[in-house]
Amino acid sequence: MSKGSKGAVTRAAGFLAAGVACGLKRSGKRDLALVHCPGGATAAAMFTTNRIVSAAVEIARRHVQSGRICGVVINSGNANACTGQKGINDALTMCRTAARHIGADTHEVLVASTGIIGHPLPIARVKAGIAAAAGELSASAAAGHNFARAIMTTDTRCKEAVKTVRISGKQVTIGGTAKGAGMIGPNMATTISVITTDAAISAGMLKKAMAAAVGESLNRLTVDGHQSTNDTAIVLASGAAENPIIERDCPRYRAFAAALKAVCDDLTRQMALDAEGATRMFKVVVTAAASQAEAARAARAVADYDLVKCAVHGGDPNWGRIICAVGSCGVRLDPQKLACKINNTTVFSKGRPIKFDRAKVSSMIRRQEHTITVHLGVGTHTDFCYGCDLSREYVTINADYHT
Amino acid sequence: MSKGSKGAVTRAAGFLAAGVACGLKRSGKRDLALVHCPGGATAAAMFTTNRIVSAAVEIARRHVQSGRICGVVINSGNANACTGQKGINDALTMCRTAARHIGADTHEVLVASTGIIGHPLPIARVKAGIAAAAGELSASAAAGHNFARAIMTTDTRCKEAVKTVRISGKQVTIGGTAKGAGMIGPNMATTISVITTDAAISAGMLKKAMAAAVGESLNRLTVDGHQSTNDTAIVLASGAAENPIIERDCPRYRAFAAALKAVCDDLTRQMALDAEGATRMFKVVVTAAASQAEAARAARAVADYDLVKCAVHGGDPNWGRIICAVGSCGVRLDPQKLACKINNTTVFSKGRPIKFDRAKVSSMIRRQEHTITVHLGVGTHTDFCYGCDLSREYVTINADYHT
Repeated sequence: MSKGSKGAVTRAAGFLAAGVACGLKRSGKRDLALVHCPGGATAAAMFTTNRIVSAAVEIARRHVQSGRICGVVINSGNANACTGQKGINDALTMCRTAARHIGADTHEVLVASTGIIGHPLPIARVKAGIAAAAGELSASAAAGHNFARAIMTTDTRCKEAVKTVRISGKQVTIGGTAKGAGMIGPNMATTISVITTDAAISAGMLKKAMAAAVGESLNRLTVDGHQSTNDTAIVLASGAAENPIIERDCPRYRAFAAALKAVCDDLTRQMALDAEGATRMFKVVVTAAASQAEAARAARAVADYDLVKCAVHGGDPNWGRIICAVGSCGVRLDPQKLACKINNTTVFSKGRPIKFDRAKVSSMIRRQEHTITVHLGVGTHTDFCYGCDLSREYVTINADYHT
Repeated sequence: MSKGSKGAVTRAAGFLAAGVACGLKRSGKRDLALVHCPGGATAAAMFTTNRIVSAAVEIARRHVQSGRICGVVINSGNANACTGQKGINDALTMCRTAARHIGADTHEVLVASTGIIGHPLPIARVKAGIAAAAGELSASAAAGHNFARAIMTTDTRCKEAVKTVRISGKQVTIGGTAKGAGMIGPNMATTISVITTDAAISAGMLKKAMAAAVGESLNRLTVDGHQSTNDTAIVLASGAAENPIIERDCPRYRAFAAALKAVCDDLTRQMALDAEGATRMFKVVVTAAASQAEAARAARAVADYDLVKCAVHGGDPNWGRIICAVGSCGVRLDPQKLACKINNTTVFSKGRPIKFDRAKVSSMIRRQEHTITVHLGVGTHTDFCYGCDLSREYVTINADYHT
């Protein structure tokens, strides 16, 4: 959690939240989260592009079309994926139950689920949980923080971020929370994110800002290269800040979009650092690529490569593995111009190793975050990706976690 | 090593080999390997498709064009990759030195290197090693085994395989050795393989048989999804078996090709089981895919997915992760027809989980090898991939191995 961001989801005006335990997690921890916007909110959402999607994603995709959303209900501990018609019915029941408690229509509620795949939801417990959460709805920071805790699965820390920005003299607040520690690949590397803002903004511009923010942040994180069946990122805008409504690509829009991107980027970095077993993160920047797609592919190839992730874990400036990943991912490059930097230290230039201070570079890698830059030498395109190290702990978590 | 395959590379008639230590490996272990075919051999070779290739690959690609090869010289402990013009000169010097000792022309010698990237070869030591190896050349099983030991890097076991086949009344022998434990991805998942045979076969048919064999074996193994800068697979045919020469796609060719494929498949399985930190391997078969390429992509996506590899390590029948990998790799599938089997036990059918005996399936996974079958339900194409589990030991090897 970024400093001062506790309870981020209730920071913007116009939102109440709650997070309770309803018995989905064996640990007894909070597993049912509810956010409510009494005045209704403009909404936008992005979903996993996995071909297999959870029942919640199917329903939320449908409900977000309406453009006006009054609440979001989320359960952790069970993904409600690969659960057939019962799963669809259960996701709808979650919306209907929440809607009844907050005085809205079923289609005005979005739903998300996260947890184990293939198990039917114990829907009676979930319904009781929704009732309990509705009873605890509050605009307090504690309530917002409980919401953040209730969407966690294998996360060890809450991810929360807040940013304020002045728009036409009004203070606009954007607050968000995210969960995700594994099964994270580019293109909705999100698992579940919920962002609330009091900005007044049209549905179209909110969607545009969200797509841009997620594209530059959550979609650029890879922990293990795969997206889950449940990835969902939701933004709700209450309009309570009473700024002149943002309806086109104007300076006001750009100020809002930059702040939204900052929140998403902050959440993404928090996820990278709390990824399963991760002890540090890194950013891969690819420059001088022949196309945008190739720049993105090469950056992802480096960030996804287990041997690079292990080298980062060991604090080893192993440029050989970086070069190997770039060379084998199918992008165009000039072997005579290929170069690689770790932070500002060149370790490989014009296709040849460079002498550098290994101890110094190793200590840079051992910090919380460093940047690997690879110059392909064939074009003008640049892209990036976030990754994290691979530890023994990752294996322990994922080999010993049983279905 | 398969039983009775010790010294595989000198098993076919017409080959001498040696493996010595020349000081490239700090451990003092054997690191210089030489095979000699006094009568000359028809040769075919396949190389990495990584865009960055070692100096040895550049030279060997050129020399194999001649079609007639008298020797192969290989060093381990240093990849001679990213070493510029000195690297090219050194690779040529290796060929020239070996050629002089075995009485051949420089272009009749192939070269391969494996080990650390970006360090210039200590060429004086390598030359002394070639001289020493030439002095120890022998057709004995011990000499063949020393060759196999001298190409190893992080391998913990020698990989050797032998197959004999009768062709037109003559016994033909095919023997091979391979090294490779990490940096192994499809499309030359080979690192270094050397196969010798006494078959009489034209260069064209040898190339065809080798491409087919490697395509169905070495190219189907993924340990970490990436190919190295040095992958090389070489086959040499001495003709000493005196079978009527194989010059077209006839029954004799098919018998030879099947035996060659069996040798490559055997070596591939040995590599999977000796992959860095691996304790077991698995085969992923994808059926009912919309195209051959999609079947291959889906199989590789499952075999490469760290969460699947961790589940295999933990003996966990975690079909959710398998389905997730297939769903996120971009292939067409029918969510209503999707099915998954572990060996012969169906664990997922028609898009829904199936009740199965978890303890029994877990014990199947814990064996040396099991098969995961995924039915996509949209077409008629099938493909497969080999993978291995991901252990804490993999991380230890690759985080603590320093450049």
